[in-house]
Amino acid sequence: MRVVVLRIGHRYVRDYRVTTHVALVARAFGVEKMLVVNAEDEIKKTVKEVNERWGSNFELEEVNSWKSVIKEWKNSSNKIVHLTMYGIDVDDAMKQIKKDGKDLMIVIGAEKVPKELYDISDYNVSIGNQPHSEIAALAIFLDRLFEGRQLRQEFKGKMKIVPSVKDKVVKTT
Amino acid sequence: MRVVVLRIGHRYVRDYRVTTHVALVARAFGVEKMLVVNAEDEIKKTVKEVNERWGSNFELEEVNSWKSVIKEWKNSSNKIVHLTMYGIDVDDAMKQIKKDGKDLMIVIGAEKVPKELYDISDYNVSIGNQPHSEIAALAIFLDRLFEGRQLRQEFKGKMKIVPSVKDKVVKTT
Repeated sequence: MRVVVLRIGHRYVRDYRVTTHVALVARAFGVEKMLVVNAEDEIKKTVKEVNERWGSNFELEEVNSWKSVIKEWKNSSNKIVHLTMYGIDVDDAMKQIKKDGKDLMIVIGAEKVPKELYDISDYNVSIGNQPHSEIAALAIFLDRLFEGRQLRQEFKGKMKIVPSVKDKVVKTT
Repeated sequence: MRVVVLRIGHRYVRDYRVTTHVALVARAFGVEKMLVVNAEDEIKKTVKEVNERWGSNFELEEVNSWKSVIKEWKNSSNKIVHLTMYGIDVDDAMKQIKKDGKDLMIVIGAEKVPKELYDISDYNVSIGNQPHSEIAALAIFLDRLFEGRQLRQEFKGKMKIVPSVKDKVVKTT
């Protein structure tokens, strides 16, 4: 199953750090690509550096219109999951998503999201119905989707952490 | 089991939004209080507004020194969990943490964290060994700790979401 993330509503400067966190979570949790409209060059630079240092081919792709990206994705009978506090419970939705077994585009909004997105999405999914963080929502969704396996992926980079009780142990190749 | 979060290394302005996300995740995922050194008044205001609107008595408490807070916490034989990409695997650590059954202080750093924290913590726990986000790390840790129950907590606020397939449905009391 291919999984990509689409970040919409990114606001220049204001959302810089939050969108960077979204990208790093996507990469670390098994997503192959994040699409974003109007991202700062610094976010691309961060992703490139993290890939070089820690491994993976995770991509950050700039797109012009989120609507045409979604339309194209839906044409191939893949599914759209929109993460929102107003949606149906993640555990209920997940059963059907896994049964579908289709490639997924996970859409993550920043602040207000156009109503159109709720209509066009195959699943509007909530990670609890309380306000919190799109970064947390993405992490929980992917953790449920991959059932924790994403934390045990092999990354082949220049640097690799050796888990430690008290120290920072990094192997460099 | 009481769970509190201690946010250390918060940098004024720069970390404002990330620390706000950390606080909202803590609140939504079953934590009773977050302690932070030197937080903006706006973060306290956001937490207060979210509590009033959506319910809960989640507290944001400003503290002067993270070291004395940790020392005091340890005196009562409670445990300290530090979330770090260098630590031991969350699923391994979680078995012992649940067996201990002690109250937990979860420490979340921003950027570089002093070595002292690794030494003083009972558990240095990693959510994967890749760089990502302290917001995601906190969410996954709490989700594992509460086994998903935190998403079904009852919050008694003025507003309540009715999960919906396509719409935003909010009940106001």
